[in-house]
Amino acid sequence: MTAPFHLAAFMNAGPMGTVGWRHPEARPDFLDAAYYLETARLLEDARFDLLFIPDSLAVPRSLQGSFEPAVRFGAGTPRLEPLTVLALLAGATSRIGLVATTSTGYAAPYAVARTYATLDHLSGGRAGWNVVTSFQDAEAQNFGFPALPPREERYARAEEFLEAATQLWDSWSDDALVLDKESGQLGRPEEVRAVDYRGEHVATQGPLGVPRPPQGYPVIVQAGASPQGRDVAARWADVIFCSHESIESAIEFYADVKRRALEHGRDPEAVRILPAVSPVVGTDRADAQARHRAFEQLVDPVAGLSRLAYHINTDLTRYDLDGPLPELDVSGVQGHYREVLEHARRENLTVRELGQWYGARTEGYLVGSGSDIADGMEEWVDRGAADGFMIVAAHVPGSFAEFVEHVVPELRRRGRLREEYRGTTLRENLGLARPARDEWRNRARGRGAAESPS
Amino acid sequence: MTAPFHLAAFMNAGPMGTVGWRHPEARPDFLDAAYYLETARLLEDARFDLLFIPDSLAVPRSLQGSFEPAVRFGAGTPRLEPLTVLALLAGATSRIGLVATTSTGYAAPYAVARTYATLDHLSGGRAGWNVVTSFQDAEAQNFGFPALPPREERYARAEEFLEAATQLWDSWSDDALVLDKESGQLGRPEEVRAVDYRGEHVATQGPLGVPRPPQGYPVIVQAGASPQGRDVAARWADVIFCSHESIESAIEFYADVKRRALEHGRDPEAVRILPAVSPVVGTDRADAQARHRAFEQLVDPVAGLSRLAYHINTDLTRYDLDGPLPELDVSGVQGHYREVLEHARRENLTVRELGQWYGARTEGYLVGSGSDIADGMEEWVDRGAADGFMIVAAHVPGSFAEFVEHVVPELRRRGRLREEYRGTTLRENLGLARPARDEWRNRARGRGAAESPS
Repeated sequence: MTAPFHLAAFMNAGPMGTVGWRHPEARPDFLDAAYYLETARLLEDARFDLLFIPDSLAVPRSLQGSFEPAVRFGAGTPRLEPLTVLALLAGATSRIGLVATTSTGYAAPYAVARTYATLDHLSGGRAGWNVVTSFQDAEAQNFGFPALPPREERYARAEEFLEAATQLWDSWSDDALVLDKESGQLGRPEEVRAVDYRGEHVATQGPLGVPRPPQGYPVIVQAGASPQGRDVAARWADVIFCSHESIESAIEFYADVKRRALEHGRDPEAVRILPAVSPVVGTDRADAQARHRAFEQLVDPVAGLSRLAYHINTDLTRYDLDGPLPELDVSGVQGHYREVLEHARRENLTVRELGQWYGARTEGYLVGSGSDIADGMEEWVDRGAADGFMIVAAHVPGSFAEFVEHVVPELRRRGRLREEYRGTTLRENLGLARPARDEWRNRARGRGAAESPS
Repeated sequence: MTAPFHLAAFMNAGPMGTVGWRHPEARPDFLDAAYYLETARLLEDARFDLLFIPDSLAVPRSLQGSFEPAVRFGAGTPRLEPLTVLALLAGATSRIGLVATTSTGYAAPYAVARTYATLDHLSGGRAGWNVVTSFQDAEAQNFGFPALPPREERYARAEEFLEAATQLWDSWSDDALVLDKESGQLGRPEEVRAVDYRGEHVATQGPLGVPRPPQGYPVIVQAGASPQGRDVAARWADVIFCSHESIESAIEFYADVKRRALEHGRDPEAVRILPAVSPVVGTDRADAQARHRAFEQLVDPVAGLSRLAYHINTDLTRYDLDGPLPELDVSGVQGHYREVLEHARRENLTVRELGQWYGARTEGYLVGSGSDIADGMEEWVDRGAADGFMIVAAHVPGSFAEFVEHVVPELRRRGRLREEYRGTTLRENLGLARPARDEWRNRARGRGAAESPS
């Protein structure tokens, strides 16, 4: 089969990790509008479906509880607020989807639903929300809590949060606004309703102060890798972002999530699975490999461990640096540690060697010529591991520029990328139906969970 | 004296009240980017210092607890999230200040400080924060609280919130970023510090994930009219937005706030007081009066009472519509009810008549030719009632367009408006110093309040 697949672009609202900002071509002006405006235009010109910005609510305190390594090496800091960046881009782009990350841990559904509804209106239906539950103690502490709540509680809150948010988006019908200047009637009160959501973790009255978003609901993105995470994603997500060390684990994940979506009463086709790929492109394979080696040489092993500590909320410098990786039940992103452990075992790495490797690592390396990388991507799609890819930049804008120059034309030649946007909204470009009002009622809670409270 | 004064523009992120959206020239596309982009460009071309967007966190439930009149008449709804609108504008403008409204009641200092710091970076130092404490029960209920907290508690929280936010903005020194690609050092850890703020109402650990804003602190705007409100404003505000029914009450307010600023150890010149003015401009006075009468005829008295109920959190339809206004201690914006009462007494209005008047009212009408309005503005500045004005649009973009066409050139001829922006940041354009790190320590709490906890 040669159906076109989807392309998303992943970049931080700040430096790209401890190594990416050091790349000779990396732009240093990541606090300025121009950095984002010019990168978004590059991606839109290449017809990417969406631009995705991750988030974190703290300067990571990854080694011995100190934020010093993060500041010194640029591990997860600084980082601008992603919705603000995307709102900036909404006025300067016209087709590319704009997906920000917002945690359900420390905000209220009314505020989050309102901001995404606003972005969806102002962008003409191009907003997406990557729903995360946060994973660092330092984030909880920035919001006045002593520590990260347990995973079960975080996911229970996330489910309620999504129920409340979707009901807020549904509080105005699609045709509630009349705007009849003659009679003085602005809206139809009978087409607007309260929500009165009372959960264990969140509550809101409604209605929302913003009419129903152009897309019905903004596109929901999720990246949960744990069983709870997969279940939330299967219930709610339109797009699932994931990361795998091998095509085999990607195929297993793909099949599992599509099966879970079916269990939640959803069409598995309505869930787009986009594994992360970090392409290192060269004029030929040798050139690409040389580029990749040059990049790896920029890594400091402690910076790499600091970055890993940030991702898994666990400080591996407490263990023997020259010993093997310990088996741990980490409180951070669980699936991620599993992958890292898998890699370390396979390559027989010490903790120090792992730091060296991890510092330069971006999800799903593909190193080679444009044709090599196109081959790799085709294989993943054709073997049922992907509906498209999240292209993770190692450095900005260089990684995207190389991909656009060398890989995009190759994929177009092979009929795997569309030449033009299919529509104006992100849902249209992803080939996803616009949810009717009350569509959330079709999203049954997973096994063992209580019925929706309203 | 003929020193230039300041101009700010006030518009909703939605329809302009129950009447403004019905104006024949009012644009109906207030959910679209173009509405904001084109209006902001008009204001920037005329060299306005800033664009100000108010906010509210609920569809007002102003009459008998129902949101129906608000939806029917367009009283305070719909309303987009203001920071998202201003971020959109940051990319499409280069000099005009961007002031959004955010309540301290239902958000966390970490989130708010981070978003305004982001907007300040992306706009090159043009962000401002209008600090409000919220005044409607419906807003509290949207965030899971049973009712609006008492005024004392709201202001105590606001003070803590501002202390925490300024300390977060100060958590990075101005030169903490190094970005040395050669050595791999991104930042100087010794120039970044935690905040560890523990108040009665808010707490945060820090440091902020965003480096110190270009303006040090975004411009702080306040509009408190009650004694507590004036005190918070005198301690924290760079710009004070107010509204008066007479020049005499404006002169009293101006003198009182400048005196309070001095008591807080601040230079009274460092506080800009901008009363609201809603100009109705015509080719001559008769034309302007005819325009104003036409506008008033669009009012439904119940819509007017619904709008008033939203502003003062009190439903006057519970009283005799044909009787006089009652004396009330309203829980909403206190100074506002005092003004309305003052007007009703002077004009001997019934509740119904007040509704008719209030529906068309915008703060500080000035009706006349360009020359008449310039005369009025000059008088206010020269008699010590104002450092400039907040131009409140009755309808958008017409009110601004008329003001720019007829009043701005007249004020320029008189030397009361500068021809060009003075600088690139909002502080520079307002003639306000950039706060050094830890400048917040100079902001002593008001009488009787405890010392700052850190």
